[in-house]
Amino acid sequence: MSAKSKLSVVILILSVAALFAGLASAKQDPELKQCSHQCRVQQQFDEQQKEECERRCEEYHREKKEREREKEHGFDPDRKLRECQSRCMGQGQGEARQLCRFRCQQRLEREHDRRWEEEGKRQTKEHEEEEEEQEHNPYVFEDRHFYTATKTEKGRVDLLAKFTQNSDVLRGIENYRLALLVANPKAFVVPNHFDADAIFVVTQGRGRISMIQEDKRRSFNIETGDIIRVRAGTPLYLINRDDNEKLFIVKLLQPVNRPDHYEVFYGAGGGNPESFYETFSIEILEAALKTSRDKLERFFDKQGEGAFLEASKEQIEAMSSHEEGREGGGGIWPFKSDSKNPFNLFKKRRPSKSNKYGQLFEVDADEFQHLKDSDLGVSYANITRGCMTAPFFNSRAIKIAIVVQGEGYLEMVSPDSGRRKSGSSLQKTSSRLRPDTVFVVPAGHPFVTVASSRTNLEILCFEVNIENNVRYLLAGEGNFVQQFEKEAKELAFKTREAEVDRIFGNQDEEFFFPGPRQQRTRDYE
Amino acid sequence: MSAKSKLSVVILILSVAALFAGLASAKQDPELKQCSHQCRVQQQFDEQQKEECERRCEEYHREKKEREREKEHGFDPDRKLRECQSRCMGQGQGEARQLCRFRCQQRLEREHDRRWEEEGKRQTKEHEEEEEEQEHNPYVFEDRHFYTATKTEKGRVDLLAKFTQNSDVLRGIENYRLALLVANPKAFVVPNHFDADAIFVVTQGRGRISMIQEDKRRSFNIETGDIIRVRAGTPLYLINRDDNEKLFIVKLLQPVNRPDHYEVFYGAGGGNPESFYETFSIEILEAALKTSRDKLERFFDKQGEGAFLEASKEQIEAMSSHEEGREGGGGIWPFKSDSKNPFNLFKKRRPSKSNKYGQLFEVDADEFQHLKDSDLGVSYANITRGCMTAPFFNSRAIKIAIVVQGEGYLEMVSPDSGRRKSGSSLQKTSSRLRPDTVFVVPAGHPFVTVASSRTNLEILCFEVNIENNVRYLLAGEGNFVQQFEKEAKELAFKTREAEVDRIFGNQDEEFFFPGPRQQRTRDYE
Amino acid sequence: MSAKSKLSVVILILSVAALFAGLASAKQDPELKQCSHQCRVQQQFDEQQKEECERRCEEYHREKKEREREKEHGFDPDRKLRECQSRCMGQGQGEARQLCRFRCQQRLEREHDRRWEEEGKRQTKEHEEEEEEQEHNPYVFEDRHFYTATKTEKGRVDLLAKFTQNSDVLRGIENYRLALLVANPKAFVVPNHFDADAIFVVTQGRGRISMIQEDKRRSFNIETGDIIRVRAGTPLYLINRDDNEKLFIVKLLQPVNRPDHYEVFYGAGGGNPESFYETFSIEILEAALKTSRDKLERFFDKQGEGAFLEASKEQIEAMSSHEEGREGGGGIWPFKSDSKNPFNLFKKRRPSKSNKYGQLFEVDADEFQHLKDSDLGVSYANITRGCMTAPFFNSRAIKIAIVVQGEGYLEMVSPDSGRRKSGSSLQKTSSRLRPDTVFVVPAGHPFVTVASSRTNLEILCFEVNIENNVRYLLAGEGNFVQQFEKEAKELAFKTREAEVDRIFGNQDEEFFFPGPRQQRTRDYE
Repeated sequence: MSAKSKLSVVILILSVAALFAGLASAKQDPELKQCSHQCRVQQQFDEQQKEECERRCEEYHREKKEREREKEHGFDPDRKLRECQSRCMGQGQGEARQLCRFRCQQRLEREHDRRWEEEGKRQTKEHEEEEEEQEHNPYVFEDRHFYTATKTEKGRVDLLAKFTQNSDVLRGIENYRLALLVANPKAFVVPNHFDADAIFVVTQGRGRISMIQEDKRRSFNIETGDIIRVRAGTPLYLINRDDNEKLFIVKLLQPVNRPDHYEVFYGAGGGNPESFYETFSIEILEAALKTSRDKLERFFDKQGEGAFLEASKEQIEAMSSHEEGREGGGGIWPFKSDSKNPFNLFKKRRPSKSNKYGQLFEVDADEFQHLKDSDLGVSYANITRGCMTAPFFNSRAIKIAIVVQGEGYLEMVSPDSGRRKSGSSLQKTSSRLRPDTVFVVPAGHPFVTVASSRTNLEILCFEVNIENNVRYLLAGEGNFVQQFEKEAKELAFKTREAEVDRIFGNQDEEFFFPGPRQQRTRDYE
Repeated sequence: MSAKSKLSVVILILSVAALFAGLASAKQDPELKQCSHQCRVQQQFDEQQKEECERRCEEYHREKKEREREKEHGFDPDRKLRECQSRCMGQGQGEARQLCRFRCQQRLEREHDRRWEEEGKRQTKEHEEEEEEQEHNPYVFEDRHFYTATKTEKGRVDLLAKFTQNSDVLRGIENYRLALLVANPKAFVVPNHFDADAIFVVTQGRGRISMIQEDKRRSFNIETGDIIRVRAGTPLYLINRDDNEKLFIVKLLQPVNRPDHYEVFYGAGGGNPESFYETFSIEILEAALKTSRDKLERFFDKQGEGAFLEASKEQIEAMSSHEEGREGGGGIWPFKSDSKNPFNLFKKRRPSKSNKYGQLFEVDADEFQHLKDSDLGVSYANITRGCMTAPFFNSRAIKIAIVVQGEGYLEMVSPDSGRRKSGSSLQKTSSRLRPDTVFVVPAGHPFVTVASSRTNLEILCFEVNIENNVRYLLAGEGNFVQQFEKEAKELAFKTREAEVDRIFGNQDEEFFFPGPRQQRTRDYE
Repeated sequence: MSAKSKLSVVILILSVAALFAGLASAKQDPELKQCSHQCRVQQQFDEQQKEECERRCEEYHREKKEREREKEHGFDPDRKLRECQSRCMGQGQGEARQLCRFRCQQRLEREHDRRWEEEGKRQTKEHEEEEEEQEHNPYVFEDRHFYTATKTEKGRVDLLAKFTQNSDVLRGIENYRLALLVANPKAFVVPNHFDADAIFVVTQGRGRISMIQEDKRRSFNIETGDIIRVRAGTPLYLINRDDNEKLFIVKLLQPVNRPDHYEVFYGAGGGNPESFYETFSIEILEAALKTSRDKLERFFDKQGEGAFLEASKEQIEAMSSHEEGREGGGGIWPFKSDSKNPFNLFKKRRPSKSNKYGQLFEVDADEFQHLKDSDLGVSYANITRGCMTAPFFNSRAIKIAIVVQGEGYLEMVSPDSGRRKSGSSLQKTSSRLRPDTVFVVPAGHPFVTVASSRTNLEILCFEVNIENNVRYLLAGEGNFVQQFEKEAKELAFKTREAEVDRIFGNQDEEFFFPGPRQQRTRDYE
C-alpha cells in the first residue's frame, strides 16, 4: 500500500470515527458495521487496502469500547496488559514472544505515565478551582491521591501519592509511603518482595501470611488489629482465608534503595505479574536452573492472571492449618523472641484512654521491639459518634492517620501555608474525614478530630519519631496550662489566676469529650 | 460612586501624592492638609466622593509616615500588626472580628514576604558589588543575614538565614538553624513551643526558664554560661529577672518536621502573638473547654502585646523564688539524673587550654549527656587582645561559631569556591569578626582566629558531629607534623629533617599564641 | 601598540593559524618557522609589534602541541600546572609569585571545569547515540565516568562520578564516592587528609601507610586483600614499597561536610599540591610558626612535584622497617583493640562459599568493628572462567562492585527505567564487565555475574546497609522457592508441586554454577 493510500485510509477512518464520536446514543455494533461497510465500498481501495481499513475500524472500535469501559470502571492496567499479551501468542516461541510481551509492557507503561500526568494536571486544575481552604491543605489526602498499583478481580493495592507531592511541608516524612491492600475472599497474593521496610496493620478480615526469613518459612494467621513488621526484601505471600469478608491491610513503607520510592518484585511465573525469573535471559535461566529452554518456557508461561489469584477452599484450608504457634502460645515469628505474642492492638490489652466518649489503643514501643527499631508508634482511636478528642499536640512525633470507619472532621492549627519563613502566624486547617481519608499532623501542631453525629469515627495512626514523644493536652484533665505558675498564668492571659484556672478547669473529662453541639449551650459554664 | 469617579479619585490622589513625594522638606501636616483641601474643592465630586478622597489622603499620609518611620527604625511587624488589628475593634464580635484580625495577619505576612524578597534581591545585588573575596565567602554571616522573627519593645528574636541560602557548601548543616533571643530587663516571654530540638546558651544576663515536661513544670534560674537543652515541642516561658541588664540567649535549633525550617507556636491568649487556642473554631473551643463562647472571647481577647511582655518587680521576685534545686545542690532538671549540676561552661571547671594568650572552655559530651545525644559539642574561646588561636582543623566536627564580644578576624583555608569538583586547589577565606558575626568551619578545614589589638575576642562555638572528632594542630606544641617519620618529613618538605623540626619547633606555646604584629620581627627565628 | 594594531596582529595570527590548522601532515617546526617569518615580513609592524607577533606564534604553537599531546595522552592537569607555575619563577618573591601561581591554579581550574562540562555534554550525546540498552543503564560505570583527581608520573587518583550523575535511581548511595589510587613502584604519596570517612581496600601490591591518630603516628605495611578504615580528617601518607609492582587501592568514601562531595587537603610544602600551610597569609604563618617570612618562603617553596613523589630505596627501606606489630602479632592499629589482626580478606580465613566454579570471601561485620560502625560489608568473588554466580538478591544491602581482574558480564533485573512510579514492570539490565567497571546492585534486585570463557572474573564488593541483610538465592542449593508450602507452589506457578520441585531441584550446586554454554544442552534436564 502506498504512503498516499495509507493516508487516505487514515483520513477516512478518522472522519468515520469523528462521525460516530458525536453519536453517543448509537449502538456500538452498528457503528462498527457501518465503518466496515464504508471500507468495503471505497472504489479506490484494492483488497489489501480494504482489509487494512476494516482492521482499523475494528481497532478504533475496540479502543473506543475500552475508553468507555474505563470511564465506567476506571483504568485497569492488568486487564489491558493481559489483552495485549494474549495477542503475542501468535508470535512464536522464546525471545520473539518475550519481546512482544515486553512491548506490551512498555506500551502500558507509557499509557500509565500519560494518564498519571494527565491526572496530575487534572488534579492541579481541580485543586486550583476548589475553595481556598482546600487549596492550602497539604496535610490531607483523599481518594484522588491514591494510585492503583495493581488490580485484578481478586484484589488490589492502592498506593498513596508521595506526601510531598503537593507541598514541601511534609518533607519530614518524605521517606514514608502508605499503601492499602484489599484482598477479596479466598484471594491468594502471589509471592513477592519489595525494597522497603514495612509495617502491615490488618484493619479488617482474616488472612494468613507466609514469609521466607533467611532459610525458613514462617506462616501465621492474621486478623483485625494484628501488626506485622516485614523487613525489606523478605519474600512473602498472603491469603484471605475468609469465604465472605474482604481482607484489608494498611501498609506503611520505608524504602531502602531510594528515599521516597519502592518497587515490588514478583517471583512467581508468568508474564503477569512479570516474574523476575522470566526477566533473565533464557540461557542464564537454563544454566541457573539446569533445565532446558523448552521446559522453562512451558513452566513459566502458565501463570498469567495477575498478582491476586483465587485459591480453592481446599488450598485455603490446607494452608491455614499449617499455622505455627499462635494457638500454641509459644510465640509466633516475628514476635517470638522480642515481642508479646500474638501482637494485636485490641486483644488482651486495655485501651490507654477510655470513657464513654471514646477509646484509644496504643502500642507501646517497648512492647513491640520492631516498632522501636523503626522509631514508630501505632495507635487506634475509636471516637463515639458526636464526640471528639481533646485538642493536643505531639512534641516530636509526626502522625500519619487513616480513617478506617465512620465520618467526622479534623481541625488542625498550622502555620499559615502562604508563608515560607518561620514566624508566628497560624491558620486553621479543616477537613472532612471519610473512610480512607489520610491526614498528617506534624509535631507541635495542635489538632482535634470530631466524630459525626451519625457514626463512630475510627482512625488508625502511625507515629513517626515516637521516641521521647510527649502528648501535650490543651484542654480537659491534665491540660498543660494547669502547670503554669500563678504569675505566668496572669502574664500570659492578662487576667487573675482564678479566672485562668476556671477556664482550664471546667472540662474534667480526659482525652475524649462530648463534641460541639452535643450539649446545649446552657450546659457550658 | 461609579467606577469612573473612583478612577478619578485614584488619579487625583496619585498626582497629589506625586506632588508631595518630591517635597522632602515639606512639613507633614501641611501635606495632608493640602491633599484634603484638593479633595474638597473638586467640583465634579459629590459629598461621598469627597469623603472617599479625604479618607484616601489620610490613608496615604499614614502609610507615608509609616514608611518614613520604618526608614528610621526598621520594619516593626508587631507594631504594624497591633495597629491593623486595633482597627478591627469596630468590626463586631466573634468570627467577624477574628476574620478581620486574620486579614491583618495575612496582609502583614504578604508584606513580610515582599520585604524578604526585596531584601534578598538587595543583598544579592550588594553582594555582587562587593569585592571578590566577600563574594566567595559562604562561610560567614553578618547582621544582614539575620531576619527579625519577632520583636516588641521588650525584646526580640532574630533568626539567621539558612546556612545554605547563599551556597550549597554548608549542606552538611542545613538541618540546623541559629537564633538570637534578646530580652530586655524584666521582660516575660509568653509560653510557646517550637517544632525543633534546641540547645540554649546564655551568653549574658540573669534569667529564669520554666518548661512543662510531660505533666510537671521545671523551673530554674539561668545565668551567663548556662547550657540548656530544650526538647522539641516542650512548652516553655522565660523571664529576664534583672532590673538593668539585657538577657542574651543563643539558640541552636534542629527542626523535627522539616529539615531546615521550624515554627513557633504561642499558647497564650490574644491575637498577638496569635494563640493556637484562638485558631480553633469557636465551637471546638466551647466543647473542649466546656465554656461558653462569650466567656471565651472575653478571656482570649485580653492579651495582645506581643511575645515579649513586661513583668512587674513583684511577679519577677515571686517567680524567681520558686527556684528548684540549683542552690540546694540536689540537681536541677534537666541535669538531674544524667548531668553534672548546675551545668555551666565556666563555673567549677577549668579551661581545657589556657595561657596568657587565651582560654578555651569546652563541654565534654560525656559530662552533659544531652549534648552527646545530639552529637554536639559546645565550646567558648576567649582570645586575649592581639593574640590568636593556633591554626588547626577538626577531623569530623563542623564548627558553628558566633562572636559574643570583641573584634578580630578569621582566616580559613577552603577549597576554591569557584570549583564544583573534588581536587586540590585551595583558597584563603578571610573575614572581619564583630559581635554577632556567625562563621562556619567545615570539618578538615584549617583556620585561625585573631583578636584585634584593642579587645579580647570571645567566641561561642557549637560543634556538630563531635563524636570521634580530633583536633589537629598545625603549629605550636603538639602540632601533627612532629609525628611524621624522618623520611616522610624529608620527602614531604624536600629538605633535611633537622630543618623541618626547626620550623615546626620554634613555636612552643600551645593553642593560643601572640598574634601577628605582636612581636617585633626580630623575635622570629 | 595601538588597539588597532593589536587587532591586526590577532587577525594575522588567526589566519596563519587557520592556514596551518589544515596541514595535518606539515612538520611542526616548519609551521612555527613560517608563522614567525610572516611576522617579520609585515611591513606595517614596528619592532615591538613584530616581537609580539612572534611571541604569539610561539604561544599558538605551544598550545597546539599541547592539544596534540593531550589528544594522544589525555589531559594532564599536574603537568600543565607545573608548566604554568614554572613561568612564575621570573615574577619576584613572596606574594607576587604566590599570586602568579594562584592564577595558574585558577586558570587550570577553569580549564578543568570547561573540560568537565564538555565531557559531560559529549557523554550525554554519545549516550544518546548508544543503543537503547546502554541508554537505560544507570547502574554501570565505565572508564569514561572516572575523573582524574590528581596525577603525576608516579601515580594517580581517579574519582568516580557521583552515582546519581546520570539518574536518580541510585539516590540511596548518593552519599558515597568511589576512588581508585594507583601508586607506581617506590612512589610516596605526600601527607594529606580529606573530609570523608573511608574504607581502603588494597587490590594489588605492597605498600605502607602511616596515619596520625590524635597525637600518635601509626604505621603498617599493607598488601593485597588488606582492608583499612580511615576516619575523616586523619592525616596520612603512603608508600609503594615494591620496586616493580604498582600499588592499587580502591577507596569507598563517605563525605562528612557535604553529602556527595569531599575535598583533599595536602599539608606538605610547595605550590603543587597546594599546601594548606601556604594558603594562610604570610603574617599568620610567621606568628603561628614563630619564624620569619624569608625562612618560611624558602622552606615551603621546595616541594613542587605533585602529590606523588619518588622515594629512594633507602627511604623505603627505612620506613618499611618501622613496621609496628603486624609481624609481632600483638595487633596493629587500627585493628588492635576491636578487630582481628592483621585484617585481610584472604589470609587465615576460608571462603564463605567455595566450589570448583568459584569462591566468595566475605568480611563479617562482627569480625571487623569498623565496618559494622559504618553498616558496610566487604566481599570478594572469584568466579572461575566460564562460570557464574547463582541468581540472587540482597534483602537490604546495596552492592557497589568493581571488577578487579578478568572479563565477563552482568545481568540484573530492575524496574523499567522508563517508568517513574512504583509498579511491577521489570526489565533486564545487561553489561559487559571489564577491569575497573563499577556496577551497583540495589537491594531487592535479582542479578547474576558470569565470567568469560577466557578468564576468571574477580570482583570486589562493598555492601551498604549490611545490617540484617539476607541473601536470597533464586536457584541452586538453598533457593527460596523450596521454602514455599505445597499450595503456594501450586498457586504461584499454576502447576503441580512435583513439577515446581523438579525445576527448582535440578541445580544442586551452591552459589557458583557452570555458566551458560559450559554444558552441552543435553546435560540439562
